[in-house]
Amino acid sequence: MEVSTAAYLAESRSRQLAELIDWLRIPSISTLPEHAADVHRAAVWLTQALQRAGLEHVELIETDLHPLVYADWLHAGPSAPTLLIYGHFDVQPADPLDEWHAPPFEPTQRGDDLVARGASDDKGQTLVLIKAIEALLQTVGRLPVNVKFIAEGEEESDGESIARYVATHTAKLAADAVLISDSHMLSPSQPTLLYGLRGMWGCEITVRGAAHDLHSGTFGGVIHNANQALAELLAALHDSTGRVTVPGFYDAVRKLTDTERTLLAAVPHGEREILDESGAPAIWGEAEFTVVERTGARPTLEINGMWGGFTGTGFKTVIPSEARAKVSCRLVPDQDPEAIGAAIERYLYQLAPPTVQVSVQKSFGAPAFIAPLDAPAVHAAVRACRRVYNVDPVFMREGGSIPVVNLFQQTLGATIVLMGLGLPNDNMHAPDEKFHLPNFYRGIELVIAFLEELAQP
Amino acid sequence: MEVSTAAYLAESRSRQLAELIDWLRIPSISTLPEHAADVHRAAVWLTQALQRAGLEHVELIETDLHPLVYADWLHAGPSAPTLLIYGHFDVQPADPLDEWHAPPFEPTQRGDDLVARGASDDKGQTLVLIKAIEALLQTVGRLPVNVKFIAEGEEESDGESIARYVATHTAKLAADAVLISDSHMLSPSQPTLLYGLRGMWGCEITVRGAAHDLHSGTFGGVIHNANQALAELLAALHDSTGRVTVPGFYDAVRKLTDTERTLLAAVPHGEREILDESGAPAIWGEAEFTVVERTGARPTLEINGMWGGFTGTGFKTVIPSEARAKVSCRLVPDQDPEAIGAAIERYLYQLAPPTVQVSVQKSFGAPAFIAPLDAPAVHAAVRACRRVYNVDPVFMREGGSIPVVNLFQQTLGATIVLMGLGLPNDNMHAPDEKFHLPNFYRGIELVIAFLEELAQP
Repeated sequence: MEVSTAAYLAESRSRQLAELIDWLRIPSISTLPEHAADVHRAAVWLTQALQRAGLEHVELIETDLHPLVYADWLHAGPSAPTLLIYGHFDVQPADPLDEWHAPPFEPTQRGDDLVARGASDDKGQTLVLIKAIEALLQTVGRLPVNVKFIAEGEEESDGESIARYVATHTAKLAADAVLISDSHMLSPSQPTLLYGLRGMWGCEITVRGAAHDLHSGTFGGVIHNANQALAELLAALHDSTGRVTVPGFYDAVRKLTDTERTLLAAVPHGEREILDESGAPAIWGEAEFTVVERTGARPTLEINGMWGGFTGTGFKTVIPSEARAKVSCRLVPDQDPEAIGAAIERYLYQLAPPTVQVSVQKSFGAPAFIAPLDAPAVHAAVRACRRVYNVDPVFMREGGSIPVVNLFQQTLGATIVLMGLGLPNDNMHAPDEKFHLPNFYRGIELVIAFLEELAQP
Repeated sequence: MEVSTAAYLAESRSRQLAELIDWLRIPSISTLPEHAADVHRAAVWLTQALQRAGLEHVELIETDLHPLVYADWLHAGPSAPTLLIYGHFDVQPADPLDEWHAPPFEPTQRGDDLVARGASDDKGQTLVLIKAIEALLQTVGRLPVNVKFIAEGEEESDGESIARYVATHTAKLAADAVLISDSHMLSPSQPTLLYGLRGMWGCEITVRGAAHDLHSGTFGGVIHNANQALAELLAALHDSTGRVTVPGFYDAVRKLTDTERTLLAAVPHGEREILDESGAPAIWGEAEFTVVERTGARPTLEINGMWGGFTGTGFKTVIPSEARAKVSCRLVPDQDPEAIGAAIERYLYQLAPPTVQVSVQKSFGAPAFIAPLDAPAVHAAVRACRRVYNVDPVFMREGGSIPVVNLFQQTLGATIVLMGLGLPNDNMHAPDEKFHLPNFYRGIELVIAFLEELAQP
């Protein structure tokens, strides 16, 4: 990094933070229809930030749902590599609101952390990428590689708009590598490269018993309570060791090689860290795998939401006629989301007793991802980590899903570099989501180093 | 019934209906603190109705929670029996509101039915008792027996105020018999006397896993999902045959005698009727008992409410940290609510895995009730049914609970007569609660006949 760039970064910190706070005030929750206008506002805000950064061809692309944002800078020359940078400006819903210690859309600084919905996932991390480009363009006046930038507003919902756009704009988005910052690093001093991500499949399960709620005095003992039937179904989806009982669920799971188990065993993240971060009383799950293996290389099935009957203050001695659950799976290579979804549906229908009606409505699906490790862009990322952090990055598989990585890998044939700047205790998708500000500032240096290293043969 | 009384009833029908509608407009939901003033208004309304009826010593009795209402007419002479009449003016909550076809507190006539929360449970049935007294006092000018009237506003919550009042006002309330209309008759032409009621025990179960909601990508596979842990606990409370698995749950259950099984087998209410009334796809429960035995003489455990995690529109791939359920039991003779509650708590704590924390908070408890059948007041009720309906009443045990009956039986030593005027499809405690108006009008005649028969030796 040139001296002028370093000086620019040092003097522009408060402005960078102010911009992030400004963006985080927009409640761009993509899954809630009442926030559609906010998602659009967040996209407009992003186009302005890209223009300020000095990127060209800044474009707000309308879709059937939430807009996409594109920009590029293509003056590094035809022999320089082309990097596609991806981010997203939509955020998760903020509830349960009463568990936040500050309003989710009024960003609050607490020590070195900035607390707000979207702080780390993914507005903070996306802004790191933009601020790195801005620092170079505003000081050196050029970038060492050609850069394309695309961001979406449906990452937290189904991402259908970007899927359609990438499929129809392959040449426009063509790149040698894709850089995504939408994941964790193990600690503020331990850079982390993800080479595997879990896929997803999600559905809503509805159990219907009687045609309407019934008085438990009159009908208790002769009508199957929908809450009970749902609890029985849901409980049957795991055995007592934490394994998913759906027939065929693990059939396609790619086995960990001995080499990979050794690599993952070196990750300095164990049961103690997980208990500290979660506050749970004990570790749970498949005992024959380490916690790092379980969160990265094993598929899971979670009950994200569950509700039925009377849930207000007081009591209502009712037999509810209907109960529902939102269930989602994290999938690993080589599980096929459609096949897993079909197996889950089949199993639920098979378990369903004749006393209730069970229906399963698919919400979304995305396959798992695994990246090749021996690629120029990965080597450049390793060198950039060494330069900025003075240590080698850790290679990890992560439990989360970024559906777009499969899309980029398959459609563009590009090397995916997942260089996360969040922390494991950032409460992504939970109350008090935060972004560790030292990661924000040092992350900008890391991205600059990566752009510079990527230009080296 | 004298001619003048019959004429009075015929000409006052529209006024009686208007009064009921007026009372039903008051949303006197006793379990919701925000409706406390409405419960009080419903009590004031009742004192005015009792005054119009010609009862004396009308009193609104303030308590720690919702008021009681008392009145009497004691001029039948010392040799005439004394009848205590009971009703309640509080109602169940109205949700789910979107399943009502008309607003719950805007009474709507639909054919012969009046649809409103509280229509049958218990404002409609309570008003029947008052209108019978009014018809006699306004025409004959006297009642054939001494009458005391008491009503409460906490029947749908825990009824603690009336329990304290009865315990400290035994002489004031002393009676030979107690008449309660807060139950069903099998059909509009089949009068029904209940001789058994189930007791109750209720609690709220809370399962806590992590300290806050977690990202299912980061923590899926290593932290026990609170929804899943709750589903596993709840599912473990019944076996596959519908029996409650709580150790000792059935130990104290009084066995049905052969005589009683024969009596209950004669009840013209079977699986077909239950399927018609409930709209459920199949009958559920303990196969070795008939449906009439199951709803009347077998204890049950119901999950009245259950909730945890993200339940809004869209999806949130969260591992919820907390999940809750409201669970209640219907108890039979000779189960002790406290002992059953303790057994349930013990079992839940025993089932709870080390990966979550389980807490159980008791909400309420009341023992079951069984009445002697060979008593003058019961014989009078049978004769009254024959006079007005031209058939013998059916004797049934019912699944519901009226906690106050144990109180009256034990404290006053009175014979309890449970002469219900609701119908099995009245949707008590459910959306579209209704009262069948022919039961309203004919019920008034039945109560008049009962008062007259009770005066006969």
